[in-house]
Amino acid sequence: MAGIPPTTAERRDYDDHMHATVIYGPHDVRVEDVPDPVLVHPADAVVRVTHACICGSDLWAYQGVAAREPGQRIGHEFLGVVESTGADVTGVKPGDTVVAPFVWSDGVCEFCREGLHTSCPVGGFWGQPGSDGGQGEAVRVPYADGTLVKLPSGLGDAELVKILALSDVMSTGHHAALAAGVRRGGTVAVVGDGAVGLCGVLAAHRLGAERIIALGRHDARTALARRFGATDVVPERGDEAIAVVRELTGGQGAHAVIEAVGTEQSMRTAIGVARDGGAVGFVGVPHGGSAGVDIGDMFGRNVALRGGVAPARAYIPELLADVLAGTLDPSPVFDATVGLDGVPGGYAAMNDRKALKVLVRPHGGAV
Amino acid sequence: MAGIPPTTAERRDYDDHMHATVIYGPHDVRVEDVPDPVLVHPADAVVRVTHACICGSDLWAYQGVAAREPGQRIGHEFLGVVESTGADVTGVKPGDTVVAPFVWSDGVCEFCREGLHTSCPVGGFWGQPGSDGGQGEAVRVPYADGTLVKLPSGLGDAELVKILALSDVMSTGHHAALAAGVRRGGTVAVVGDGAVGLCGVLAAHRLGAERIIALGRHDARTALARRFGATDVVPERGDEAIAVVRELTGGQGAHAVIEAVGTEQSMRTAIGVARDGGAVGFVGVPHGGSAGVDIGDMFGRNVALRGGVAPARAYIPELLADVLAGTLDPSPVFDATVGLDGVPGGYAAMNDRKALKVLVRPHGGAV
Repeated sequence: MAGIPPTTAERRDYDDHMHATVIYGPHDVRVEDVPDPVLVHPADAVVRVTHACICGSDLWAYQGVAAREPGQRIGHEFLGVVESTGADVTGVKPGDTVVAPFVWSDGVCEFCREGLHTSCPVGGFWGQPGSDGGQGEAVRVPYADGTLVKLPSGLGDAELVKILALSDVMSTGHHAALAAGVRRGGTVAVVGDGAVGLCGVLAAHRLGAERIIALGRHDARTALARRFGATDVVPERGDEAIAVVRELTGGQGAHAVIEAVGTEQSMRTAIGVARDGGAVGFVGVPHGGSAGVDIGDMFGRNVALRGGVAPARAYIPELLADVLAGTLDPSPVFDATVGLDGVPGGYAAMNDRKALKVLVRPHGGAV
Repeated sequence: MAGIPPTTAERRDYDDHMHATVIYGPHDVRVEDVPDPVLVHPADAVVRVTHACICGSDLWAYQGVAAREPGQRIGHEFLGVVESTGADVTGVKPGDTVVAPFVWSDGVCEFCREGLHTSCPVGGFWGQPGSDGGQGEAVRVPYADGTLVKLPSGLGDAELVKILALSDVMSTGHHAALAAGVRRGGTVAVVGDGAVGLCGVLAAHRLGAERIIALGRHDARTALARRFGATDVVPERGDEAIAVVRELTGGQGAHAVIEAVGTEQSMRTAIGVARDGGAVGFVGVPHGGSAGVDIGDMFGRNVALRGGVAPARAYIPELLADVLAGTLDPSPVFDATVGLDGVPGGYAAMNDRKALKVLVRPHGGAV
């Protein structure tokens, strides 16, 4: 496709190629030379990626559980600087620092106006065939005005790393907390001690939950859960975990449960620890099918199941305000940093649970 | 067990036996001589049943899909006159006309105070082993103060028949509508043209839904759906029904979906016709397991699943006010009437879909 000439040219100092992460199959993630992104539509922008990261959901593709076409780009969380904009773009300009949610969307359709940007009819996921992924030097952003959130100028690196987490993991934790109906003074259980679960703890704490029970057994992760606001840690799993959570809650279970894994067992546990009349907010990409959804138990106890792919674009402004105010900091979920060449190793580290969540700096720079 | 002497004696004019409906197995429902109910606990009342009915959920037992011990009583919807009360009962007295929800509850526990009477720790279902069923001459009512709703004196039979529907079917339709998030001006789809589905239509209309799409293909039932407020009737099923509902809603589906069947296919259809970000309110006793719960579809489109056994006790006062004000009349769901001896035939008629819902007059009386 021929590129539309940018309204402003502030090109990176390369030839027509850049480096980006490409997935070929299970355990086969490579960093390769790919064409530089160019403006294709007048609503596009090209963003130079300064901060990206690897998501737990990328591991489903890495493990081969979620199918990918060989050669697809990968990575859906990024923050960077606008390099060029199409003729229709008015909300951002070259030089602006921006954060992208993990789904692009036009910002003007009925769903976007309602705050469900993930259902925008022209929306899409970074890395889907024909699009760039976040784990690369630059990204062509469709519907730049609808998709990107402009950041204040002059932010330091530490602030940018916090804000990077809003692109997915923190927004997803927040979505789970809302879907689970977390309320001030309530009791929350969080199934899953990955980065999303930990951000669910942080989101529940932010929303005023009084008691937050984190289910997990990895010391570093449960320590972070406590730092994020967990009041109790339950290392048990399955039926034992259900029994312990019930014991901790006077036999009743938790008003709100965050399911942040996506397996049959995690869903079964989440429903099992919910209090009658409560809700499970599920954000773990469901790879367990519905076998863990005990509909008879849900029916008898009026337990609701709510959630899904988080409309991060809807949440970023509110969460960003808290980050800028200094009251919200999800950045401790990043416990390793790599350059672009280190991305395949980052996948392996996360897959082996040696890293919780890996920060990627495509253009280098120390933490 | 020895009975506690009633504080007031206004006994029925029989010996120590009465007639009640007993289930022995699939298609084996009998009306038999059983002991008269007597007060056992100080919080009990004995109610002489003037109006009862047969529920679609009774058919699950009748068909053998839901297990029952041979000899269990059956019937969980009734209205009648208080005959005697235990020493602790203060809210009703002999001679009062009362309606019972389909679950008894103490009215004072945490769940009852929250309006989730179906989760009362000492609650139970009429007909469970050791209890009376509604399809009989009289019922011992545990926790009479918490369970029974006293009606104004002097109501005519037509009003009482309307109020009988609040014991389950109308309250369940209302629960489904609330669980589905029906809102003024919204679009609702109702899966199931049984009495609960039809009451779901009526409940959605009462809550101000602008468009109500009833899925059903039986002329008499869809006619009643239209009378209750349905604006559209879709006779198709399964994927075809999903396609038609989407076509009727500009491709989007319904904001709120009422699932009033409980099979795998009905659940699949309900989720399929929901608009992104919408909710399915499910009240059909789930006999299809979770196979119809497409968790991947729910995830991608943020469709919620909420509902369960309806806390009718919480809803009766509000719905009763509307019946008494003349703005709510669910009684057209009753399309046949029998005396107690006609109950087995009533089951057969409903099972053969020759009757929608059968009214039972244990002590006779014409409609």
